[in-house]
Amino acid sequence: MKAEIISIGDELLIGQVVNTNASWMASELNAMGVDVVKIVAIADDKSQIIRTLDMASAEADIILMTGGLGPTKDDITKKTLAEYFDSELVFHEPTFEQVKKIFKARNFEVTDVNKQQALIPDNCIPLFNKNGTAPGMWFEKDGKVYVSMPGVPFEMKPMMTEQVLPRLREKFNFGVIYHKTVMTTGMPESFLAEKIKDWENSLPGNIKLAYLPQPGIVRLRLTAKGNNEEELKKIVHTKIGELKKIIGDIIFGYDDVTLEEVVGELLRKNGKTVSTAESCTGGYISHLITSISGSSDYFEGAVVSYSNNVKNKVLGVPEEYLVKHGAVSKQVVEAMATGVKKIMGTDFAVATSGIAGPTGGTADKPVGTTWIAVATPGNVISKLYHFGEHRGRNIRRAALAALEMLRHELI
Amino acid sequence: MKAEIISIGDELLIGQVVNTNASWMASELNAMGVDVVKIVAIADDKSQIIRTLDMASAEADIILMTGGLGPTKDDITKKTLAEYFDSELVFHEPTFEQVKKIFKARNFEVTDVNKQQALIPDNCIPLFNKNGTAPGMWFEKDGKVYVSMPGVPFEMKPMMTEQVLPRLREKFNFGVIYHKTVMTTGMPESFLAEKIKDWENSLPGNIKLAYLPQPGIVRLRLTAKGNNEEELKKIVHTKIGELKKIIGDIIFGYDDVTLEEVVGELLRKNGKTVSTAESCTGGYISHLITSISGSSDYFEGAVVSYSNNVKNKVLGVPEEYLVKHGAVSKQVVEAMATGVKKIMGTDFAVATSGIAGPTGGTADKPVGTTWIAVATPGNVISKLYHFGEHRGRNIRRAALAALEMLRHELI
Repeated sequence: MKAEIISIGDELLIGQVVNTNASWMASELNAMGVDVVKIVAIADDKSQIIRTLDMASAEADIILMTGGLGPTKDDITKKTLAEYFDSELVFHEPTFEQVKKIFKARNFEVTDVNKQQALIPDNCIPLFNKNGTAPGMWFEKDGKVYVSMPGVPFEMKPMMTEQVLPRLREKFNFGVIYHKTVMTTGMPESFLAEKIKDWENSLPGNIKLAYLPQPGIVRLRLTAKGNNEEELKKIVHTKIGELKKIIGDIIFGYDDVTLEEVVGELLRKNGKTVSTAESCTGGYISHLITSISGSSDYFEGAVVSYSNNVKNKVLGVPEEYLVKHGAVSKQVVEAMATGVKKIMGTDFAVATSGIAGPTGGTADKPVGTTWIAVATPGNVISKLYHFGEHRGRNIRRAALAALEMLRHELI
Repeated sequence: MKAEIISIGDELLIGQVVNTNASWMASELNAMGVDVVKIVAIADDKSQIIRTLDMASAEADIILMTGGLGPTKDDITKKTLAEYFDSELVFHEPTFEQVKKIFKARNFEVTDVNKQQALIPDNCIPLFNKNGTAPGMWFEKDGKVYVSMPGVPFEMKPMMTEQVLPRLREKFNFGVIYHKTVMTTGMPESFLAEKIKDWENSLPGNIKLAYLPQPGIVRLRLTAKGNNEEELKKIVHTKIGELKKIIGDIIFGYDDVTLEEVVGELLRKNGKTVSTAESCTGGYISHLITSISGSSDYFEGAVVSYSNNVKNKVLGVPEEYLVKHGAVSKQVVEAMATGVKKIMGTDFAVATSGIAGPTGGTADKPVGTTWIAVATPGNVISKLYHFGEHRGRNIRRAALAALEMLRHELI
């Protein structure tokens, strides 16, 4: 089965926005056994949209479009599609209800422009947009499927996962495909590849391995194709069992679970609480933990001690530590962890102190130098890390390393 | 002048790699006055490459390709191009010298496979690759230019900047293009569109407006085309002056500046400091502020008071407020702001308390209900917001609203 992705939007063609939608969609389709043969980005331009649809129809069975569905006048996709599929735009009550609901929640009035958002082509299946006002549209023509979705990732992704992919599976027979993604942290891709080389070579022909690296994390995706799901599962799980013997300590979970979810579940299961004291991570660990719904069950709070004054006054880090060892030191980070644990009255605490960069490095402590501590009910441990030169990535990697240290104390 | 970008590589079609090359190239071309009409990603497949080149030739004057030039067997671009442009592959001595030099530096032996990298089509202008082994190739046919470059960004970018763009400028006469992006926050796209409708209709024909929405932010991008840069600048700035009279209060900056950068600059300029007390935003405001290098000049720290206990014990919020009004209330959020301002000894402080969701809402205070306070040197102000139902979005929007409230106190 072949698919083509068409991304519509001037912002892509002037390079203002990177097309992350298309790569996410390609990855999802690929995971389902669909070959993406082409990804095209074009302007909000009627004749270009029509030409591209014509060409896509000749090359693919599934054509997925994103973008060009907003309420403003530079968005002409909907009208073009209505024309392309020989349909009339009709008022769609459930869509208008959603427009009103979203506007009401935000305390805005519904205008005439918004009413137009409830117009849809009469021969499409509307796809409910739970996170926005513009619905998706599913068309069928000559055995091929054409889907138009909003370009906002937060609206497109759930529409794709909850409606488009299940409908595609229902309509087409993709064969059996089984995926398992192994989540690892703390080892760079090239190092990991070298370490599991023999294991990778031992994989049977119907199992493909893909390395999917992100800052601080490498996902290993196993894709098995065949006819019998139980057999595929069995062999994949056997191979993962072998993998765990080689790199078990850096595997924190499976199937796109996040480290903050894993740590949260461990805290909940053990009935324990945590707090954070953050210098270089600036509240990012706290943000990750609280991005999980229900985290108030195990998270009390955080102190971001960006200045030495706050480290001393709020967290109780002795001034002599700050003077003698500097803020980025084993002594200070351990005192931060024990300090916040005491103030917040938690069972565990994590603390970070490092040089996020790009400035502030010295010969002794170059940019990327980071101390991380974990205070446990009876102890405090700490570790020195050397990250890179990029501020944003250093913050992300320090936060992941802190959560991973905490995870090891919880298992 | 029209251009098309063709990105070649299976890794793009399975979603393993995001096509950042294409958006970077598009941005460079656009800045030079070239319209990118299409970006296409295709596989390392001979017939697909030829079909795509045929179509591109019909739509564009400049066709830039990346990828498919490495030494491994899936890279067939070079052979396909030689065939497409009716040329023979010939051995190119300077390229072989570069291959040998790079391999020597990495302590690798030169193999027969590498020798093939020095083969180039006899009718192309080779483009030296200072960071890799595969040269770029510049072809001309029927007045159109076709350039093939390596896919590795680190090799492609200097080749583009130092060789391709100067050669294009030499060959073609590009008009002048001028961009200006207006950053707004706090008003949804559709509402904004309604409000500036008359202004938008008053724009001259050579100025295009694009709405580029993100959660909590709408960017308004003006693109002007003409022959005289000074004239374009003048008219764009005049139109922006008019726009400021209509929506000046929600414009926080220009050209992709972030709200945290703007607030940081205002604090620095005024010689003031800030701290945050965060409940529903969970440290995200602190994270945004500290994502800016040099923020330690004006940011002291934060208290994430996720539990009522921390609100009371650490921030000094009176227990009776929490009992009588609840954590999500004017009284509590104002006490949080004044509390953290005092503890951290800052001039300003912001505080948030809300129901991020998806659980925890009540009839009185549904998910999305959020109180935000700003403590100034002599006062404390607060405001009630109603965001949506999505946790991540609510956190992001609450943080932006808090920074925007702080910005208004600083100007």
